[in-house]
Amino acid sequence: MMDLTIENITQNVHEINSRCSDRRFRYVLERVVVHLHDLVRETRLSTTEWMTALEFLTEVGQTCTEVRQEFILLSDVLGVSLLVDSIDHPKPKGATEGTVLGPFHTHEAKEASNGGAIASDPDGQPLLVLCKVTDSAGQPIANAKIDVWETDSKGFYDVQYSVRDGPDGRAVLTSDENGRFWFKAIVPVPYPIPSDGPVGKLLSKLQRHPYRPSHMHFMFNSPGYDPLITALYLKDDPYESSDAVFGVKNTLVVNLKKVENSDLAQRYGVDVGCALMEYDFALVTEEAVMELRHKNASEAMVAQGKNMQFVDGLPIPDVD
Amino acid sequence: MMDLTIENITQNVHEINSRCSDRRFRYVLERVVVHLHDLVRETRLSTTEWMTALEFLTEVGQTCTEVRQEFILLSDVLGVSLLVDSIDHPKPKGATEGTVLGPFHTHEAKEASNGGAIASDPDGQPLLVLCKVTDSAGQPIANAKIDVWETDSKGFYDVQYSVRDGPDGRAVLTSDENGRFWFKAIVPVPYPIPSDGPVGKLLSKLQRHPYRPSHMHFMFNSPGYDPLITALYLKDDPYESSDAVFGVKNTLVVNLKKVENSDLAQRYGVDVGCALMEYDFALVTEEAVMELRHKNASEAMVAQGKNMQFVDGLPIPDVD
Repeated sequence: MMDLTIENITQNVHEINSRCSDRRFRYVLERVVVHLHDLVRETRLSTTEWMTALEFLTEVGQTCTEVRQEFILLSDVLGVSLLVDSIDHPKPKGATEGTVLGPFHTHEAKEASNGGAIASDPDGQPLLVLCKVTDSAGQPIANAKIDVWETDSKGFYDVQYSVRDGPDGRAVLTSDENGRFWFKAIVPVPYPIPSDGPVGKLLSKLQRHPYRPSHMHFMFNSPGYDPLITALYLKDDPYESSDAVFGVKNTLVVNLKKVENSDLAQRYGVDVGCALMEYDFALVTEEAVMELRHKNASEAMVAQGKNMQFVDGLPIPDVD
Repeated sequence: MMDLTIENITQNVHEINSRCSDRRFRYVLERVVVHLHDLVRETRLSTTEWMTALEFLTEVGQTCTEVRQEFILLSDVLGVSLLVDSIDHPKPKGATEGTVLGPFHTHEAKEASNGGAIASDPDGQPLLVLCKVTDSAGQPIANAKIDVWETDSKGFYDVQYSVRDGPDGRAVLTSDENGRFWFKAIVPVPYPIPSDGPVGKLLSKLQRHPYRPSHMHFMFNSPGYDPLITALYLKDDPYESSDAVFGVKNTLVVNLKKVENSDLAQRYGVDVGCALMEYDFALVTEEAVMELRHKNASEAMVAQGKNMQFVDGLPIPDVD
C-alpha cells in the first residue's frame, strides 16, 4: 500500500481490512467503505462539508441518553429503519405487514385481561378495539402475547414524562381460544417525534415536519411464529402520506367505525357512539419467514451478478 | 407516499426531502440516502447488525471530548479523510502532495526563528531539518508561515499529556528571502493512534494494528497559495506500508541522512553525525487549485453521465 490516490484508496482500504477472519463483517465493512468512498467521489465532497457531517454525527451520538436513542431516530427519518425491517421480516402474501418499531416500546407493560382498559387519560376519546390473530391460512392462534402501546391525548408516551406513576397507554394482552383479543383504549392522535436535537434540526433544514400520523402499535409473540411488529394507522390523518419515519403502509390503514348497536355497546361495556377499531392480524411461521428471507436474498444476489454463499441466511462472497 | 416497499422506499425518501431549498445539501443528502439504502439492500443487512452499527456510532460520538474527536479517527481509519483531502486539495504536477491533517494540530504553537529547536525532549534523537518552499515553477516563496509538529520520543504529542508546561514538539517558522527554513527537532518515531475507544475496538476486530509510521507534520500558509497540509515519512519505517490512517504517499517518504561535514555541523550548531532531513516543498496558487478541483469534478460528472452545474466549485444537478 502506497502512493494513495483518489482512485486507489478504496482498494487499499479493502486490502488492509482483508485480514479480518469474520467473513460476514469483512463483507459488510467492504461495502460500507465502497459506498462511503463512492459518495465522496461522486459528490466531490468538500473538507468543510465532511467536517460538518462528522460534527453532526458527533452531536447525534451525544444526544443519546438512557431513554433517548437519536441514532435510531436518524435511521428512521432516512427510511433505513423501515428498509432493514422489511428485509429482515419479509411477509408472504396474506400475512399482516410489519412496520417500524419506534423508540417507545418498553418491557414494563402490565398484562391486561381482554376487555380491560390500557389507557387512563380522561381527555382521550374512548375507543373500543376488537381484533383477531390467525396464521396465514386463517386458523386462529390462541394464547398469543400482544404488546399494545399508544400515546396519551397530548401525543406523549408514558416514558416521555419525567414524573409518572408507572406504565400507561400500554399493556400485554393474550388471545383467547378463537384468536380474539379486545380492549379499551383512546383514539390515537398525531404527534411529533422528538425534534429538539440534531435530527430535529436536520428535518428543519430539509423543510420537513416531524409528525407521525395517528397510530397504535402492536407486537405479536407466539411460539413458532416470526414476531410481528406492526401498527395500525387511522385513515384520513393529515400526516397519512408524509409520516416523518416512513411507517405507513396501505394495508395497515384502518377506517375507524362507531359502536352503533346497543347490544355490542353493552357486551363490551362502552357507550353507543364509542369509536371502534377492528382488525384481523395474520402471523407467519418462523420457518416461512426464514425461507422467504433466504429466497429474497438469493434473488438479490443473482440480480447483482454476485457469487455468494449464505451463512445463517446472510450472504458472504463465495471465494473459490 | 404509501405502500412502502424494499424497492420504493428510496424514491419516497427523496420525494419527502425534495422540498429542501438548499440545492447542494439536497443533492448530497440524496446520494447519502441512495448509498445507505443500497448498502442495506445488497448486504441484506439484518436488524441485529443495524442495531450494532447504530450502537457503535453512538459510542463513537460519546467518546468525543474537547480534546478527542473519535469520528475523525473513524473517518481516518476508513480512508475517507485522505480521500476528501485529495479531492478538495488536488495538486498539479510538480506541487508537493498533501496528506491527512490528523487530530493533533493546534493553534497554540509559538513562532520560532530559523535554526531554533522545536522539541525539548532530551530522550529524542537530535535531527536537523533543512527545507525550502517554492512555487510550482521553483521560485522561492519568502515569508511563508510553516506550522511544524511531531511527537516526543515516546510517541505522544504535547496535547496528549494532562499535565504540561505549554506547547512542545511544535512551532511556527517563517521562510527567509530564499524560501528557506530550518530548525532542530528530534527523529520522529512510530506511534499508535488512540485505541482505547470504539475505533480501537474496530481495528482490533479487523485484525489491524493502530500504528502510524514515523512522520513529521507540515502546514504551509502564504497569501495567494492554497494551504498545504502534508507530512514527511521516514523511509523503511516498519509501518510504512500499513499506516492506520492511510497518510503515506511515495513522494512524501524521505531518506534520513547524516550531517557528515563539520562545516555544516558548525553552521547549524549540531554535532557531526546528527540525523539530517532535507526536503523542498512546492506550493500551488489558490487559483490553480480551484481550477484543477473544478476540472476534476467536471470530468467525474461527465464520466458518471450526469448533467450537473457547479456552484462554488461543487456540483448540483442541472434541472432544465
